[in-house]
Amino acid sequence: MSENTVIRARLTALREAMKQAGIDCYMIPTADYHNSEYCAEFFRVREFFSGFTGSAGTLVVTADGAWLWADGRYFIQAQRQIEGTGITLMKMGEPGVPEIRAFLKENMRDDTCFGFDGRCVTALEGRRLSQELSEKRISVRADRDLSEGIWTERPAFPCSKVFVPDEEKYAGRTVAQKLADLRRELAFAGASFFVSSKLDEIMWLFNVRGDDVECNPVAMSNCLISGNDAFLFLQEEAVTEEVRAHLAKYGVKLMNYGSFQAFLRDFDFDGAVAYDPKELSFSLAETLRSAQCREIASPLEKMKAVKNAVEAANARSCYLEDSAMLTKFIYWLKRSAGKIPMTEYTAAMKLDGMRAQISDFMGLSFGTISAYGPNAAMMHYSADEESAAEVLPEGMLLVDSGGQYLRGTTDVTRTMSLGPVTDEMRRAYTLTAVGCLSLQNAVFLHGCTGRNLDILAREPLWRVGIDYKCGTGHGIGSFLNVHEGPQNIRWKHAADEAVMEAGMIVSDEPGVYRENEFGIRIETILLTVERETTPDGTFLAFEPLTFVPLDRELLDPQYLTQEAREQLNRYHAEVYSKLSPMLDEEERAWLEQQTMPL
Amino acid sequence: MSENTVIRARLTALREAMKQAGIDCYMIPTADYHNSEYCAEFFRVREFFSGFTGSAGTLVVTADGAWLWADGRYFIQAQRQIEGTGITLMKMGEPGVPEIRAFLKENMRDDTCFGFDGRCVTALEGRRLSQELSEKRISVRADRDLSEGIWTERPAFPCSKVFVPDEEKYAGRTVAQKLADLRRELAFAGASFFVSSKLDEIMWLFNVRGDDVECNPVAMSNCLISGNDAFLFLQEEAVTEEVRAHLAKYGVKLMNYGSFQAFLRDFDFDGAVAYDPKELSFSLAETLRSAQCREIASPLEKMKAVKNAVEAANARSCYLEDSAMLTKFIYWLKRSAGKIPMTEYTAAMKLDGMRAQISDFMGLSFGTISAYGPNAAMMHYSADEESAAEVLPEGMLLVDSGGQYLRGTTDVTRTMSLGPVTDEMRRAYTLTAVGCLSLQNAVFLHGCTGRNLDILAREPLWRVGIDYKCGTGHGIGSFLNVHEGPQNIRWKHAADEAVMEAGMIVSDEPGVYRENEFGIRIETILLTVERETTPDGTFLAFEPLTFVPLDRELLDPQYLTQEAREQLNRYHAEVYSKLSPMLDEEERAWLEQQTMPL
Repeated sequence: MSENTVIRARLTALREAMKQAGIDCYMIPTADYHNSEYCAEFFRVREFFSGFTGSAGTLVVTADGAWLWADGRYFIQAQRQIEGTGITLMKMGEPGVPEIRAFLKENMRDDTCFGFDGRCVTALEGRRLSQELSEKRISVRADRDLSEGIWTERPAFPCSKVFVPDEEKYAGRTVAQKLADLRRELAFAGASFFVSSKLDEIMWLFNVRGDDVECNPVAMSNCLISGNDAFLFLQEEAVTEEVRAHLAKYGVKLMNYGSFQAFLRDFDFDGAVAYDPKELSFSLAETLRSAQCREIASPLEKMKAVKNAVEAANARSCYLEDSAMLTKFIYWLKRSAGKIPMTEYTAAMKLDGMRAQISDFMGLSFGTISAYGPNAAMMHYSADEESAAEVLPEGMLLVDSGGQYLRGTTDVTRTMSLGPVTDEMRRAYTLTAVGCLSLQNAVFLHGCTGRNLDILAREPLWRVGIDYKCGTGHGIGSFLNVHEGPQNIRWKHAADEAVMEAGMIVSDEPGVYRENEFGIRIETILLTVERETTPDGTFLAFEPLTFVPLDRELLDPQYLTQEAREQLNRYHAEVYSKLSPMLDEEERAWLEQQTMPL
Repeated sequence: MSENTVIRARLTALREAMKQAGIDCYMIPTADYHNSEYCAEFFRVREFFSGFTGSAGTLVVTADGAWLWADGRYFIQAQRQIEGTGITLMKMGEPGVPEIRAFLKENMRDDTCFGFDGRCVTALEGRRLSQELSEKRISVRADRDLSEGIWTERPAFPCSKVFVPDEEKYAGRTVAQKLADLRRELAFAGASFFVSSKLDEIMWLFNVRGDDVECNPVAMSNCLISGNDAFLFLQEEAVTEEVRAHLAKYGVKLMNYGSFQAFLRDFDFDGAVAYDPKELSFSLAETLRSAQCREIASPLEKMKAVKNAVEAANARSCYLEDSAMLTKFIYWLKRSAGKIPMTEYTAAMKLDGMRAQISDFMGLSFGTISAYGPNAAMMHYSADEESAAEVLPEGMLLVDSGGQYLRGTTDVTRTMSLGPVTDEMRRAYTLTAVGCLSLQNAVFLHGCTGRNLDILAREPLWRVGIDYKCGTGHGIGSFLNVHEGPQNIRWKHAADEAVMEAGMIVSDEPGVYRENEFGIRIETILLTVERETTPDGTFLAFEPLTFVPLDRELLDPQYLTQEAREQLNRYHAEVYSKLSPMLDEEERAWLEQQTMPL
């Protein structure tokens, strides 16, 4: 129980710091200063104070209590890791468990002080908190990271070298062109300035990359764009001569990362400043308070999501190599299961190693999910070396994986049979395939969002009373984040709907998740393309980027409609024709059999 | 040109009245006091002052100008009817034509006065106008109907006798039960009172009907509901002993229609008053200004839309008789075209006469649309006796029609071939049929709205570059309005999305509209039903209420997917089995051939 003593001591120190800062209740979210999806070790303050190592969760501490909000993925792990710390687990989404804001409003006393590190909370969320608590005259103090002085062995602030992928070969548009596009969008929004701290947007805009966030090729950065100037804030040690020359070419003013907030505070804004309150931190937004502000959805998000011809060509090229490698892996897996010792973990290692052989491989785009049997029913299952399940020559293995290449970011899921499977598994797999193919073959009028399209993937499952409790698809970057907006494919009403545009890349990943039984997901990545323009409008369609066979042993023809069968056969013919030149003879023979018309 | 002298004289009188009332600019919309879809003659003030007889349009008059806003359906007619009146036609939706609000803001001078009859404008629209004009310090005067004293031969205020369809047989729920349901919804919305002037809602709530609005079986009325009381305002002359006894049974306080506004003004509201600003008039909402108000979507709208078992059973029954009558008409039409003189108008008269033979027929649910050849490309085409096109034994006739029965309100469209048709027509008809059948056969998780479903009807047409520029479906009342909310089937984002609930009736009416060539619409009415509840949720599906064959001569098998073919054959088998007992021998033989498997 030494771990618990450690956490208790840390919490005691935190409470002392709170007292000195006049803070009655302190919140520690899981976030960096840039609202990134993943956090570098430096930012794992919540883990430091709670012992909980999950990738998401929020800790709230008062003088006499501590509560950890964690989501369904982490109920068991979090409970185990906070045992003996005095922290209470708040199971998000469970009946009777309040959301953080409601909890604070209910439990904090009038006229007290609520604190958090305003750099780790978005402007939107920070303001909601302030507003809600203001009803009880609770003040908000957002200028303190109370781990300072307590977390003495804190890992270093991430600071990899920034680099410049060949602009013509990979970006397809120069920094000058992108800045001009952005300024046009700003004028349209009635703004003279734009502030961003969203790392993937900044990398995209300046045609640079870094390695400061796990699986995301981004560098710690901020920027301010005006009508004439572009200020890019990077850590001095991260900047190479190559970067300096590249930025100088476009007149970009290179500034020090650490000076951003002060720079904003002192800047003389002679016009409206636009920023995205869903992305910019509460601290930075507060700094802009005295300026005339326009809160907008970042124009960079959509600009980045619409891939240009160079990006699209590179995506086609790297998805094809990535597909071939995954297909080789599937062949190896099916041949090896039951013959060599194999766990979920070692299978993932094998695939990761194969992918690393691709010429411009830069890393994984997310931690490979390799889930065997009932483990695949957990959507975000992650096998570690010690606890990974053994892979046997029966049932199914679900592998969701992807790579970062200079040419692009890949993401793909296939579920493979390794031996005997049940009829129920084959039915579920086949209907998942029908849904995936139906969306992949959609034709739709420009103006549609993912909400219009989602039913195409989901209805074959709905027809038999099955639903998957997640979206059908997400956007994907070009050698950037594997999850990006603004587009997505979801059926439920949400604020963040975006019209699908030609050039957008989106995943198509229906699935069936049967708790304690099995999990199936088929994920094919699609590029949105223009199909035709008629007097009635412009019609769009999808071009698949992923070319990996569906599992013939798991396809039960009785559940295929005639249309789905034709779509499957067409896709498989294309898979074979594209991949066969990239495989050895044995693999090719197997693929030929796998992709024969059904 | 005597008509123009008349209109000019009326406008002169109006301008004099404006001057006396201190109004610089006066707006006359097309509306009654209840935001009804159709207006009784009494309310046709805009027609009186403009000469334009269309069903929609707004007239704006100043001391030296007059402008009529009309939509695309009416450009030609309106231009012709306002010739020589000095009124300028504003073609809505055309490039460069401002909307009324923008026009007023642009053209009215500062510190002037804008007027309209506040009873004919919704609270929402009235406030938008006031707000926008307040920027120029323009005052709003909404308490004057300036036609008074000018329109001396104004038709009488509509005042048909209110009646009470058998409650058990038709309503399925008593007034007491409905009031209890409504009060629960009010409590949920934090309101103690509810004010409504929406006629179909009021009729539904009190289980009465009237005949004051064309095609809508409703009576001029208002109501105020509190925790203990229900006040219903009807015209004294409209109330029979039957109505009085029915209302007395439930303790409903019967009040005089004319006293409603004064009653609201003097009422002592000891709690929040809820009303729907999209429905209640600006005048009534202003009257409630001193009370504590809650603006909500009317709970009655959704309650009314979800049909109970009695309403659903009655719908099945009257739709079947209505379907049989339309099928008989189609047989007559196909047999008679080219053999007897026939126009769009006489064909409609024939159908209307046949429908009137159904036992509990109470009238049409809207004016029958009978459109031959290119006329069918106009979605809201209306043939009049003089100008109706001749129906020849070639091409297609589109007939969109419906009846009011004590058992329910029907609506159905079929497009029929009358002789030779082109391949293009057959392709368009077949793809329309595929879309209609696809939506009809949808299975979907509870929570879906029409935005999730619309693509099912539309995609077969999108696939060949065709779109229809209207929604796919609307809700339908039970012996009430043929168009009702809150549900609808549309793909575009709009504020008025509503979750589909079991019991809702909705139309499924895709189409192809080729200007100057032809028009096709197939409309089948669907009842939303529960299909199954599984651990993943409750799944809904549709049960067709309409059983009228699709046109075999217009179905081109090459455009039918296997799935659509099966859906068609299944539907046709059901059509034959349900209708055959209701037809004579000749009709039955024809129907058998029409519905044979394809």
